[in-house]
Amino acid sequence: MTTAVVAVGGNAILKRGQLPTMDNQLQNLRSISKHIAAMVSGGYNISLSHGNGPQVGDILLQNEAAKYEVPPMPLDVCVAQSQGMIGYLFQQALTEELETIRCQRTVLCMLTRVIVDPGDEAFSRPSKPIGPYYTAAEAEQMELSTGCVMREDRARGGWCRVVPSPRPVEIVEAAPISRLICSGRDLVIAAGGGGIPVVRQDGRLVGVEAVVDKDLASACLAKGMKVDLLIMLTDVDGVYLEHGSPRERLLGEITADEAERYLREGHFYAGSMGPKVEAAIAFVRAGGRKAIITRPELLHTALSSKAGTQIVNR
Amino acid sequence: MTTAVVAVGGNAILKRGQLPTMDNQLQNLRSISKHIAAMVSGGYNISLSHGNGPQVGDILLQNEAAKYEVPPMPLDVCVAQSQGMIGYLFQQALTEELETIRCQRTVLCMLTRVIVDPGDEAFSRPSKPIGPYYTAAEAEQMELSTGCVMREDRARGGWCRVVPSPRPVEIVEAAPISRLICSGRDLVIAAGGGGIPVVRQDGRLVGVEAVVDKDLASACLAKGMKVDLLIMLTDVDGVYLEHGSPRERLLGEITADEAERYLREGHFYAGSMGPKVEAAIAFVRAGGRKAIITRPELLHTALSSKAGTQIVNR
Repeated sequence: MTTAVVAVGGNAILKRGQLPTMDNQLQNLRSISKHIAAMVSGGYNISLSHGNGPQVGDILLQNEAAKYEVPPMPLDVCVAQSQGMIGYLFQQALTEELETIRCQRTVLCMLTRVIVDPGDEAFSRPSKPIGPYYTAAEAEQMELSTGCVMREDRARGGWCRVVPSPRPVEIVEAAPISRLICSGRDLVIAAGGGGIPVVRQDGRLVGVEAVVDKDLASACLAKGMKVDLLIMLTDVDGVYLEHGSPRERLLGEITADEAERYLREGHFYAGSMGPKVEAAIAFVRAGGRKAIITRPELLHTALSSKAGTQIVNR
Repeated sequence: MTTAVVAVGGNAILKRGQLPTMDNQLQNLRSISKHIAAMVSGGYNISLSHGNGPQVGDILLQNEAAKYEVPPMPLDVCVAQSQGMIGYLFQQALTEELETIRCQRTVLCMLTRVIVDPGDEAFSRPSKPIGPYYTAAEAEQMELSTGCVMREDRARGGWCRVVPSPRPVEIVEAAPISRLICSGRDLVIAAGGGGIPVVRQDGRLVGVEAVVDKDLASACLAKGMKVDLLIMLTDVDGVYLEHGSPRERLLGEITADEAERYLREGHFYAGSMGPKVEAAIAFVRAGGRKAIITRPELLHTALSSKAGTQIVNR
């Protein structure tokens, strides 16, 4: 059996402009789940990861709205809540699709912690915007009372909290997740939202207010589980050079070295394709057989190397 | 290795009158975790369940406070969020205590769904109060707009939503949880808040707005996992007859038949000891070796039958 970690983008679960209702999210998850169920019945043992950008933002907003009645939870706890929320909806959607094609697997969702380095330079340069927007006065008040870092976003006309986005070092639960999927009976949703970030402190694991990139966390999970494939599903066919220009070109199979050269040459955006390519390189260099970047609709074709961008080590 | 499901009360995680901050909850979970870690290092493979009453109430309140900005989630999704929140905090506290005594286990938290019968009479008689209190006018508005059932609580001077509390039929994830704990490497937090309630509908699992009693769900998990012991931790030494009266008497070892007679005679309160005794009877009659009801501080002594109430089948 081929093993794989499949990462699903947060914007595939909640499309831009959609209301964040349960029904909308379930509907989107069902569409993605059809392709994943087909992959599983085609003979793959997989673990799934997913983004949580819009959902954790809404949880922070709810915490803020009720703050005089319920003490707001720190970001790591909110990430844990978002893993519960999205994990359950994904579990339900995927269970449905697997039952439709009579594929027998139990879909599990495992809360997942990701160890980060307290010395990571991201901690001295919080950069990832998160949660609701505030006025300048509210932002100043928040900085004073909670110690968090606020930054103005002129385009959105408000102030927003920014948090560190450190690199993932290790997924705490990688070994048991691996045992579960290798049994051939279970499919495990894990590392949701990039995982709940924790640091080692005096031999203890302590939660920190940060968010880890979902694709880098998925590569870290894939390495820890020693799976064959890392698959990142997104809203484009694959990795493009000069994307959006008349000269744009879709990359088929490329090596990690080529990918790294393109990355250095600045072909990819920091917030979108950049981390995916970086995750792919890290995975294949650590011994993974192949990383694939494509859209859910092309998953089946990409698995036989006929679509998407395939990153290999040699 | 003896296997056990250990159920922890929601009021042990957040004591009456305490602010629901992360620190208070972590502190309480650390106290409980000391006793549980000692049990694990004493040679038990266990799964842990927990209540979520105050926490899911706060999540509902946050949903309500932000409802004009974020569409509120249904109760099953809120239960899933509470499993993420409490599961993570419990995981952290227990990991700490296990590391302190150098006991090597990975503490996992598995999202858990509980199947209930759509024909359960509880669905025609919602009885479990949940979430914030409202004025009569707000309550009427809510009944009209959402179709939920509201009930007046004169003692608290407000109206509250009531939801069905059906009996658990099966824990969807029992088999993989059992495999994990039997490996001797993991300890699994599961069935938090009584599990996320779902019904089978045309072969699909569909979430329902209900809450399942945590002790009955724990017995259901214990039966599904075929563990040896079901242990319910609470804030009294054990099961009392005529509790609170000068004639009160603590029960030591009793049979399921005796327990059932006391239950029928009305010795126990519906909301507290009643479901625990009922859960104990169901478990030992389904083949469980023994059910124990006691407080966390007496766990060690109760395991050698020298404290707590022990319910056996013969």
